[in-house]
Parts: sequence; C-alpha cells; structure tokens
Amino acid sequence: MKKTLLFISLLILSVLSTQATRPKYVFYIIGDGMGINQVNGTEMFYGELTSKTGPLPLLFSKFPYTTFVSTYSANRGVTDSAAAGTALACGEKTNNNTIGVDADSLPIYSIAVAAQKKNIPVGIITSGEIDDATPAAFFAHQINRNNRYEIGVDMLAAGFDFYAGDKFTQPSPEGKKSLYDMIPKANYTLALGIQEYNRQSQVASKMILFPQKDFPYAIDRKPGDICLADLTRCAIDFLQQKGNGFFLMIEGSKIDWAGHSRDGATNFREIKDLEESVKLAYDFYRKYPDETLIIVTADHETGGVVLGNGNYSLNLQALQYQTMSGIAFTKEIENLRKQNTEISWETIQKALSHAFGFWSKLDLSPEQEAHLKKIYEETIHNQQGDLIKSLYENNEPIAEAAKTILNEIAEITWSCSSHTAGYVPLYAIGLGAENFQGKLDNTDVPLLIARIAGYE
Amino acid sequence: MKKTLLFISLLILSVLSTQATRPKYVFYIIGDGMGINQVNGTEMFYGELTSKTGPLPLLFSKFPYTTFVSTYSANRGVTDSAAAGTALACGEKTNNNTIGVDADSLPIYSIAVAAQKKNIPVGIITSGEIDDATPAAFFAHQINRNNRYEIGVDMLAAGFDFYAGDKFTQPSPEGKKSLYDMIPKANYTLALGIQEYNRQSQVASKMILFPQKDFPYAIDRKPGDICLADLTRCAIDFLQQKGNGFFLMIEGSKIDWAGHSRDGATNFREIKDLEESVKLAYDFYRKYPDETLIIVTADHETGGVVLGNGNYSLNLQALQYQTMSGIAFTKEIENLRKQNTEISWETIQKALSHAFGFWSKLDLSPEQEAHLKKIYEETIHNQQGDLIKSLYENNEPIAEAAKTILNEIAEITWSCSSHTAGYVPLYAIGLGAENFQGKLDNTDVPLLIARIAGYE
Repeated sequence: MKKTLLFISLLILSVLSTQATRPKYVFYIIGDGMGINQVNGTEMFYGELTSKTGPLPLLFSKFPYTTFVSTYSANRGVTDSAAAGTALACGEKTNNNTIGVDADSLPIYSIAVAAQKKNIPVGIITSGEIDDATPAAFFAHQINRNNRYEIGVDMLAAGFDFYAGDKFTQPSPEGKKSLYDMIPKANYTLALGIQEYNRQSQVASKMILFPQKDFPYAIDRKPGDICLADLTRCAIDFLQQKGNGFFLMIEGSKIDWAGHSRDGATNFREIKDLEESVKLAYDFYRKYPDETLIIVTADHETGGVVLGNGNYSLNLQALQYQTMSGIAFTKEIENLRKQNTEISWETIQKALSHAFGFWSKLDLSPEQEAHLKKIYEETIHNQQGDLIKSLYENNEPIAEAAKTILNEIAEITWSCSSHTAGYVPLYAIGLGAENFQGKLDNTDVPLLIARIAGYE
Repeated sequence: MKKTLLFISLLILSVLSTQATRPKYVFYIIGDGMGINQVNGTEMFYGELTSKTGPLPLLFSKFPYTTFVSTYSANRGVTDSAAAGTALACGEKTNNNTIGVDADSLPIYSIAVAAQKKNIPVGIITSGEIDDATPAAFFAHQINRNNRYEIGVDMLAAGFDFYAGDKFTQPSPEGKKSLYDMIPKANYTLALGIQEYNRQSQVASKMILFPQKDFPYAIDRKPGDICLADLTRCAIDFLQQKGNGFFLMIEGSKIDWAGHSRDGATNFREIKDLEESVKLAYDFYRKYPDETLIIVTADHETGGVVLGNGNYSLNLQALQYQTMSGIAFTKEIENLRKQNTEISWETIQKALSHAFGFWSKLDLSPEQEAHLKKIYEETIHNQQGDLIKSLYENNEPIAEAAKTILNEIAEITWSCSSHTAGYVPLYAIGLGAENFQGKLDNTDVPLLIARIAGYE
C-alpha cells in the first residue's frame, strides 16, 4: 500500500515537473583568480571591520548550493586564464594559452554560442579588457591568447547581442583594418560610457559598451568612473528588451590582476565589488525566481594567498588603511619623480602614510621602516633599479615593499605571483541550482548549465 | 487542478517520509589539518602517478554532497585544534587552547555525549594520541589542551564504548594515580594491539585499544604496524555488537603533524591512508544504505600549502621518491651520529638518495646541492646548530632542508608551519546527507548531525 501510494505520488509529481520551465535567464558570474581563500579573506576582512572574529558573508556565500571545482588544464597542473576560460565556456580541457580551441587546436564552441543558436540573447561583460582570455573564451578561437586583434575580429563575428568591458587592446595593428571601423558593419552600436548607452540603447540592435575614459580598480574609483555593476545594469536592461530570456556572463577580471601583484586590499575590494553585480543578478532572481539561474564561480586561484602566517591569528582590518592600489601608488611616485629632481624621505613617508596608513594608522617595526628606507635610498634617492613586473602591472619597488609590509601586518601571505591549482568555489541559486552538488571539474559547469537551460 | 494534485502528492510523500528512519549509524570522519588544498594535492599527486594531468579522485571526493566550512575560533581568526575540535564536537565557538568548554570556560557537551544519552554506542578513534585535542573535544572539559592527564581522566569518566588511538601521553604524573590503573575500575578492557583486541572483544563491556608498540606515519609503516584502518575495523566490529546503531568519530590526526613539519609526501600519504577508513565506512554504508550517514571533514588547514610556485605547472610525482617521513630521516641521521664519530658527505648523500630520491631519481640544481652540503658541513661535520622544532616534531636541519628542496621540485609551497584560516572541505553521503549543502560554519556540522540522527 505504502509503495503504491509512493508510486502514484511520484508519478503525479513527475508529470507536473515536466511542465516546469527551464531557466529563461542565466547569469554566469566568474571571479577571475577568485580562489576559495580570496573569498574567505574578503569575508573575514569585512567581518573584522564590523568588530567580529569571523566572516561577514558575501551575498553569494549564502546561496543554497555551494561546492568546489578543480581547474587543471589539458597540459598543465596549473591552468592559465585561457585554458580555464575555455573549460568554463566550452566544457572541454585545452592547453594553456589557447582560447576556444581544443587540445588539437581545433575550434570548439561555448554555451554562449549554443544559447545564441536557440535565439537567446547573449551578453558578455567584464571589468577587464574585452579581448582578454576569459571573455574571449566565449566567442573567440585562437591558439594564442595574445592574438588580441584577432580576438576582437572573432568578437564582432560571433555577433552576440551585448559586449561590455575595457577597450580593445590592439584595435588597429599596422596594415590591418581598425576594429572600430568594423563595428558599424558588424551591426553594432558603440557606446562610450553609461550616458551614451542610455541615449542609444533603445534604438541599437546590438551594442558594445566601453568606458569613456579609464576602468579603474574599485579601490581607486572616483565619482563618475565606470564599474562592473554599471555594465551589469546596462546588460540586463539591454538583453531583457529582446524578450526571449538571456545568457549573461559577468567577469570580475581585476580580482586576478590584484592577485598577480599580491595586493591584498585591492584584491578583497574587487571581490566585494563583484558582489554588487551579484546583487543585481539576485534582485533579478527575486523578480523572476522560477525563471532564473545564477552561478558564481572562478577560473582559478591567483597568488597562492594564505590567511595566517603562523601566529594563529589574523589582522585583516589593517588592510582598511590602504586607500589606493599598488599601481595607483606607483603612479603617484612617478608623478613625484616628474615634478621633483630630488624627492625627500619625508615626502615618501607622507605618501606611504596616505596610501597605506603607515605611521599614521599602523605602527611599523624598526625592520619594516628600515626596509622601506633602504628601498627609498636605492630606487628613489639614487634612482637605481627597475619597475617590478607582474602580469598586469609594473610597480615601483617602494610600492611592492609597501604591499608586502601591509600583508605582513594583516598576517596574510601571497606565496607566488601567478596562478595555483587551488580548487575554486562555486555558488548556485535558482531554477536548476540543485544540480551543482558534489565536487565538480571546471568542464562540468558549462555542460550542466547547457543541460539545465536547454542550450544543447 | 494542478495545484490540488501537487498538494495531494506532497501530502502523501510527507506522510511517507515521516516514517523514514533516522540514520542509525553515523561516521564522523575528521582529517586533522586537511584543508582543501591538501585534498586537492593528494588527488593531483596520485593523478600524476597514473600519468594524468589532473586528479585521481579520493573516494570521498565522489560523495554526492560537498561544501566548505569556515573554522575561525571565538577569539582568533585562525583556530587551533582545541577550539576547532570543540566546534566540531559541541557546535559552539570557543577560545583557542580550550577543550569542551565555552568561551566563558563552562563545560559544554558533544554530540557523542548526546548520542550516548540515547543509548547509542559511541566510539572515538584517532591515528594520533587519544588525549590530543580533537578526540578530547568529544569527551573532555579542560581550559588547557595540555592538561593531558586530566583529559585521560575525563575520557574514562565519559564512559564511551570504544576508544582507540596512540597511548596516553601523561599516564601517571607524579603524585597522581596512573590512568592505566584506573582503566579496570572504569569498566574498560585495555587491548594492546589488534591480536589482543581480537582475543578480548567478545567478552569486554567497553574497550580501549592502543598499539602494542608505535603508531607510525603511513609512509613509515612496516608490516605488523597498526594503522587507522585497523582501528576502524575494530571499532565497527565492537560497536555493531552492541546492537543499537553507533556514533563513530574517526580522526586522521597525523595529516596535521606532517603539515606542521611541511612534509608534503608524508602529508598526502596520510590523507590517502584516511581514505582507507573512509572505504570501510563506505562499505558499511553500502550494506546499510538506508541507515548510515557518513560525514568527512576537517578541523582546519595546516601549513598554508599552495599547489604551484609560479610556473603554471606542478611536478607532484617527484614526491613518490620520498620513502620515509622527515622525522624518520632525522632518526636515521641520529643513528648515524651514534654509530660514527665522523660522518662523510658521501654517507649523507647516500641517505638522502634513499630517503628523498636525490641524485638517483631526482636531479638537484647546483644551488640545491650546495645548500645541502652547507647544512651538512655546519650541522653534521662541525656538529653545530640545534634540531628544528615544529609542533609535533624536532627535525635535523638536513631533514628540513631536504623536505624544502623536494617541495621546490614538486612545485608546492608550505607557507607557514602552523594553522591557517583556509576553509576546509566537507563531503557527505547517506541518510540525511542532503542537509549538508551551502557554505557552513564548523559549529553547524555537529548541530546538523544531531538533528538528523535525533541526538537532540
């Protein structure tokens, strides 16, 4: 009797459930370089600012489904963003440095392309360059991620409905037609800044949105500067007009940049900034809870960040006194160099105090102060030594030293300046989110999305 | 009509589901110091040994529910094993260094005690010392985790059915009654080794199982040495005889020891060894799938391990040539010191080659070889310098240098020799496992187990 009742109930539920819709709206949110410790560090940092020991959870940390994801590439234990982006976009492992091609260099196609084939409007937005690896993996097919011009060509050819991010990095190499000249023929309207977007979005068929000027780190943002949440708002607005659901990839790109340059305060603020876009997606989900799926994940860990340096404690709140990124501080020093033939130690101390809170908010040990002074003597007073390069930045040695000391005070370690094989987190909410359970590989994620959303 | 059908089906299912049983058998498996990167590293190491780029999944990595867990303590961003053990046992944050008491030093009680109150047989087993922090958190109440004798007294007083692990560390401090003398009065039978267990288990009311001799690291195990899987087999056997289900806590303790001493090969082999106990639990689950819940998690991360050191690659397979733990190598050197007044560089090279594969299996750079030779000259030839201390080991400087070089070759970094605030993983399978979803705090875990298993 029990079994019969169970059978009947399950049968009815099964009939009812086949009538349930697939998610019409898919948000695929990727924190570049946002490892598990980066999220944890951000939450513990903001926790400490509210006088707690323990995390102040980010919105996505409260999503009902969470798991972790492996990220290795076809040819390396540690992936780069090209292979990781391709895995997250196309569901297939490929070699480092390659985009939208398989390990034999043959083109493979992303779930964004699959969505497009189903006439679902597609948007690709990023806080980094639109032709960098992660966004490119959704629309380009290049055996070298540095073929930035070709990636731009592929982007226009892919014909997605909405692109936004920082500008093309190689718009017009010698002897080649400018990408900007190709935009109108590809049926796109280019908007430089949010105001232009607002003026043109009602009449444009497809749009590309670039910032009017710069696209700074969140920590360096001034009133009027563009941010990822602005792009997210425009993307939702534009894609929703199209009226057939949407697939929107949102990348928090500069989390990775700050990881490469071991800039803890800048890194955590970029993650907090990505949360603003997640909030917009979540607000959308609350309006359309039965039609929306949100996935938040990352492509890899950057910087090998470790929370704690041996003392069974954390002092992340110290990072609050950093008022600009390391690269912004580098620019300040460069400006000082231009304005002065001789820069005094007192001038540098004042700049360090303003940018990192040294002496004014944070005590330095005699060793830390001596180290800064030594770097000052060598690289500023005696003008020796080169800028220190990381993947996206070239920093003044004094900026590097200041970040290192602030990390020491905060009791965190950035153990390398590139990617690691650390698992990345995944958070899911909405229709179909329950499929994201159990340990996953990065190639599983787009395949699951495609299956759930019916892009196959 | 649809809504009515849905309502009726859900009603029937709900009535049926209240008739479902709670898990009768609970396995609570804790890898001490087993952070997410430790598990990932173990899987990538064994993956590389099978000529794969990418992980060879551990059994628990394939469990259907996985998430991650925050570990901070009541007073510190980075927990120790005492506060973490208390959180995992009692569901409450407390201060570092304290066991089974709250942040005001008042006693709090574990889910093992709650199970015992429901007449459910309880077992606590560990590959470490039975009076160390993690097992102690289930039965002891001490404001200082180093009160090892008092923890032993608390253990006997708690009266759980089965204890196993390495021996008491302070069995008879001066002026106090020996814990061994207290064992019979507390109604326990002590078995030294598996053979004694087999002889006595049928007639014993309650049992304590200690090794006959040592309890070595998995990497150092010789035929006949005891291991955690032996204890697990005995625990299941003993508790099942009691006939009312069981609650069994299994701790892989020495994962943490190897983390503190930055010993990668030893660490990963301890995790692989914990998997043997998980396999036994899983075999049990397959016999009783409707009555068993298995949770695998960790108390904290130890060593700040980072997979990758900046080259977008891993070379974990190099760790296969390490044939003994750092501490076992230290003992070899100590034996050489006893046997010889003068130890030659060639003798040390031969020992290093045997223990770490240097020169025979792994090429060293000139710098690495020069570094080892310098350490040899200073600490062995000239007999200067002390042993290098970590929490559980005092190692010869040459052993420390060898581990560091092997980690370099394997492209991993242990960034500190103590705990970090890294999230830990959680894996769940069995009846009620679906409750372990979404990001958790360590205090949530025992509260969920207690609710699911009806210990409340």
